[in-house]
Amino acid sequence: MMTPEKEKEKEKEQDQVVVDAGMKRYRNGEIWEFEDDLGVSDGDNGVLLGLDGGTTSTVCICMPMIPFSHSQLHSLPTLARAVAGCSNHNSVGVCVVFQCPYWVGNYGEDKRHQLEIAARETIEQVMADALSKCGSKRSSVRAVCLAVSGVNHPTDQQRILNWLRDIFPSHVRLYVLNDAVAALSSGTIGKLHGCVLISGTGSIAYGFTEDGKEARAAGAGPVLGDWGSAYGIAAKALTAVVRAYDGRGPSTMLASSILQKLGLSSAEEIIGWTYADPSWARIAALVPVVVICAEAGDEVANNILLESVQELASSVKAVVNRLGLSDGKSGFPLVMVGGVLTAHRGSWDIGKEVINCITKQFPGVIPIRPKVEPAVGAAWLAWNFFMKECHHKAEN
Amino acid sequence: MMTPEKEKEKEKEQDQVVVDAGMKRYRNGEIWEFEDDLGVSDGDNGVLLGLDGGTTSTVCICMPMIPFSHSQLHSLPTLARAVAGCSNHNSVGVCVVFQCPYWVGNYGEDKRHQLEIAARETIEQVMADALSKCGSKRSSVRAVCLAVSGVNHPTDQQRILNWLRDIFPSHVRLYVLNDAVAALSSGTIGKLHGCVLISGTGSIAYGFTEDGKEARAAGAGPVLGDWGSAYGIAAKALTAVVRAYDGRGPSTMLASSILQKLGLSSAEEIIGWTYADPSWARIAALVPVVVICAEAGDEVANNILLESVQELASSVKAVVNRLGLSDGKSGFPLVMVGGVLTAHRGSWDIGKEVINCITKQFPGVIPIRPKVEPAVGAAWLAWNFFMKECHHKAEN
Repeated sequence: MMTPEKEKEKEKEQDQVVVDAGMKRYRNGEIWEFEDDLGVSDGDNGVLLGLDGGTTSTVCICMPMIPFSHSQLHSLPTLARAVAGCSNHNSVGVCVVFQCPYWVGNYGEDKRHQLEIAARETIEQVMADALSKCGSKRSSVRAVCLAVSGVNHPTDQQRILNWLRDIFPSHVRLYVLNDAVAALSSGTIGKLHGCVLISGTGSIAYGFTEDGKEARAAGAGPVLGDWGSAYGIAAKALTAVVRAYDGRGPSTMLASSILQKLGLSSAEEIIGWTYADPSWARIAALVPVVVICAEAGDEVANNILLESVQELASSVKAVVNRLGLSDGKSGFPLVMVGGVLTAHRGSWDIGKEVINCITKQFPGVIPIRPKVEPAVGAAWLAWNFFMKECHHKAEN
Repeated sequence: MMTPEKEKEKEKEQDQVVVDAGMKRYRNGEIWEFEDDLGVSDGDNGVLLGLDGGTTSTVCICMPMIPFSHSQLHSLPTLARAVAGCSNHNSVGVCVVFQCPYWVGNYGEDKRHQLEIAARETIEQVMADALSKCGSKRSSVRAVCLAVSGVNHPTDQQRILNWLRDIFPSHVRLYVLNDAVAALSSGTIGKLHGCVLISGTGSIAYGFTEDGKEARAAGAGPVLGDWGSAYGIAAKALTAVVRAYDGRGPSTMLASSILQKLGLSSAEEIIGWTYADPSWARIAALVPVVVICAEAGDEVANNILLESVQELASSVKAVVNRLGLSDGKSGFPLVMVGGVLTAHRGSWDIGKEVINCITKQFPGVIPIRPKVEPAVGAAWLAWNFFMKECHHKAEN
């Protein structure tokens, strides 16, 4: 038998369910608790969320939904920025969120499932943090653009959309893309035209024509020959040390430099170190050592970097050729993103060499090093997609 | 207070412990239960055990300990043969027994621990099976030679020796080696001289001089450039399909052949297939497809095989040079083992090409394709090591 008190409680719970419809509360609502302290929506135009979920960190940008013209998009202010995860190879990689394990590491199924749950929570938390920072709640959100590494198929997109749908009210427009698309947008101020080249732990080239055709190259992970990535460069360097040690390859400064960096005493120990942890970012972190050795004149290190330049340039050329982005002279934007292409201190600049290599075949290439991060690119895309939908509705 | 009955039971248990000293019984003694049905030792010379623990199966050979001359070693009869595991990539890989994870797959720590326990049980069971088959018990064993992949350091050896020590009575001589050494012995009838080249899922070259110096090359696993292995060949083939698909590489027959073999409908699906399971043997199993394409005239497949030949030959050359095994013309045995070198049906014979390549630099090379399996080589080594110890004792 239910007492009148219990019945009242149950009714209250049911009311709560109705209020929360389409606003699923995870972790007993802890993540979204801040919303209870905010007043009703202030009747403004609302906000946009742009997210960039890479393998090592997730950034969320909150921008106002001001309906001004596209050419002014770059002056849209950032209301709040939140970050989860850090450049630590032990952190949760976001690309496993939806069972896309590559570039995080080759983990077993149980571990992957744990990572997936943790990554979903990370994304939800970072969105809540951004909204909380600017005093907005989910009901004020107009559009969310979530760019995640490892999203390749419409089925990947749909799975993520279904999950996002449960978090936001039904009026919120949701967009899910490969993180390369947000990186392109960060360089083209929200316009999907041209090619982006990313080389971080992994590498990928992704391009769009003005009429919406798209193509990608590389980005297939470490087993499938991603030699232009930081992982690829570092794996080749470790291999060179083993080969020098066992007599198959020339001696190289990489041996002493890498052993010192890893605190190992012999090249034999590199084998154990390599397989002790399945994280790819941990191996990728050795790239600065390779660059230092190449700058000091080590031929083996130099050749590894030259090969990575060829690999990266060939990815871009493949995309440009497939899309017909340029007849050679005609211009197209090439957005360059990721530590391998942008971080350089000495004489060896991988990004510059890649541009030189592409320029030979496509003199019209317009290299762009974005001034904003990919999460801003994602927010710009959210603005663009939302405005297009509005115009489309107004026209019909 | 202990009742007289309980005290008696306890005494009985203690007696049992004394009887079993140095004869640890796993799984409540289930594995070694057959010994209870055997009579006392028949006073003969006893038996030897030779084990070959690879990544996909473990073989145990039981031979009689007949003290005849070394030259007659090849006529030592096999009393029993037992096998555990099978050429199934889901089976337990033995090389994880002692935390040497490479060549099984990049599993997480929990899974690796499970595999280790399972692999130890596998090895113990296969020894019990071999002894049981020929009606011998552990007290009749004179020597055990366990050859395991992934044993590289004296610390690896010691850990395995400690574990074996608990299974056998204290008089049993125990030897633990890298599986490459047993493979060499299988071709040289127990003599540790010359070089062995193994190419299965992984690849390694291992050599000995007559005065006991040793050297190895390659065998550093898939991350560290083991391109001469079945895994290396197959990973390059998968990469070639992805590159052909995204426009970075030439089109190749490998695409349709591999997609058909894997039951996939598009090259894009290869990425998901590759990372769905961290087992390396699963990828390595694609080598026959590469050979068929090369034989059908596909240039990409042909180049992949030519590169693997160069890799394998360079491993052998590195070992021969480091050990000074040959001045060029002087002869040395080269034992060839593993599916990549021995399995061929059509016109492409990787093993033959490797020999051709080595012969150019070392015309004195004497290629040997062993007629017996590596486990027999391990048993021959057990005989040799045991006899040497006996002679050494007799001399002192």
